[in-house]
Amino acid sequence: MTTSGGTRQPKYQRIADALRAAIRAGEYGPGARLPGENDLMAAHGVARMTARQALGVLQSEGIVESRKGAGVFVRSFRPLRRHGVQRLAGERWGAGRSVWSADIEDRTLVVDQVGVAEEPAQERIARVLDIAPDDAVCVRHRRYVLEGKPVLLATSFLPAALVAGSAITREDTGPGGIYAHLDELGLKPVHFREEVRSRMPSQDEAHRLSLSAGTPVMLICRTAFAAEGRPVEVNEMVLDSASYVLEYDFDA
Amino acid sequence: MTTSGGTRQPKYQRIADALRAAIRAGEYGPGARLPGENDLMAAHGVARMTARQALGVLQSEGIVESRKGAGVFVRSFRPLRRHGVQRLAGERWGAGRSVWSADIEDRTLVVDQVGVAEEPAQERIARVLDIAPDDAVCVRHRRYVLEGKPVLLATSFLPAALVAGSAITREDTGPGGIYAHLDELGLKPVHFREEVRSRMPSQDEAHRLSLSAGTPVMLICRTAFAAEGRPVEVNEMVLDSASYVLEYDFDA
Repeated sequence: MTTSGGTRQPKYQRIADALRAAIRAGEYGPGARLPGENDLMAAHGVARMTARQALGVLQSEGIVESRKGAGVFVRSFRPLRRHGVQRLAGERWGAGRSVWSADIEDRTLVVDQVGVAEEPAQERIARVLDIAPDDAVCVRHRRYVLEGKPVLLATSFLPAALVAGSAITREDTGPGGIYAHLDELGLKPVHFREEVRSRMPSQDEAHRLSLSAGTPVMLICRTAFAAEGRPVEVNEMVLDSASYVLEYDFDA
Repeated sequence: MTTSGGTRQPKYQRIADALRAAIRAGEYGPGARLPGENDLMAAHGVARMTARQALGVLQSEGIVESRKGAGVFVRSFRPLRRHGVQRLAGERWGAGRSVWSADIEDRTLVVDQVGVAEEPAQERIARVLDIAPDDAVCVRHRRYVLEGKPVLLATSFLPAALVAGSAITREDTGPGGIYAHLDELGLKPVHFREEVRSRMPSQDEAHRLSLSAGTPVMLICRTAFAAEGRPVEVNEMVLDSASYVLEYDFDA
């Protein structure tokens, strides 16, 4: 997109630039194997360390990934498209489908590592939910797995006083998910705020999402509001950035 | 947020965990200097390499940053809050202010590295703008700098046939920015689509945004549509993830 510095670049950088250009031009498609260290040494007349550095540059940019013993491959990016707005439209979750089913097109998203607990609210959560610090919250953890690859960790926090005794406090909430059940409780979400950030994963996140090196995570903190601006849920999500595109559509 | 594996962890990992917990507890605030290698060696009875690895873990997670000769410091995160929806409301840019001025609260965002060119459209741009590949587009590059720190690179693409002769093709567009000028041309943007991703930066992006190690970028590709769904601009943005929180508000 932009031209690079112009000043004399080190050799490994020029080799990385050439490989990156070839990938962008489609010469190496998603999943294709790149030339190995030996190939690069022969083609460019460089030492093994230089060839390795060149491949390392592309790896740290997240364009390619190394598979043990097999070589270095162009990452396939066939992301889940997550529609922030239409995905949460009431007709979907009102009809008893999970809000997530809108994302998956023909692919199957499986939920695992589900856990439910009641805990005192941490300060940042209490502030958003407008409850006192240490008031009890219902905490729901789960992980979403797409075609065997974990792609998303989600943790929902709901004021325990609001959801006590409801299906929301059970591991299996049945059809419709959290929002349909909030609706049954007279707490239908009518407004959402999503805050999006990005950072490198912690080792625990990298492990649970099976992230390869050079893959950041996106963080979405979603707050659901019922009528009169009453906050009813905070959902902290950690997404594999190599698996997601977030889409937001809105009018001027 | 989540508990880590539980199985025996290497020593550097346990030291990193303890430091991370201390940072989260506020024991080391934003900008504070962490204990150095010598301090950690003495406190935990470990070798220099172990102390270095522990600090390296936090650095690769983007929680701390190393400053040459001065030590390792907790990152300050006082992000720009970018409001996807209200930020683009017509009243703002219609009134002759730049859409960006809504973001900055009391802080000053400066534009530099402005460049305007006419180029044949790349295929992905032509597809979105609904023009033929190689049709001419007006390309506007610029960089946004906050308090001396570059935070955002933006490149807008507009069909050259639509904007020929207008202020949009000049380096200084005058008050109101691109959207106000599109309005003058009868091409008022009424709908926006934003697609958000994250990845590690290229070396060129890291250089232009002065990113420290372990900092990913967020990518926003925004398409502006005039009446009848006519695409009038694509804006590809590269954001320093340590400087931004994106916020989207919408109704169910």
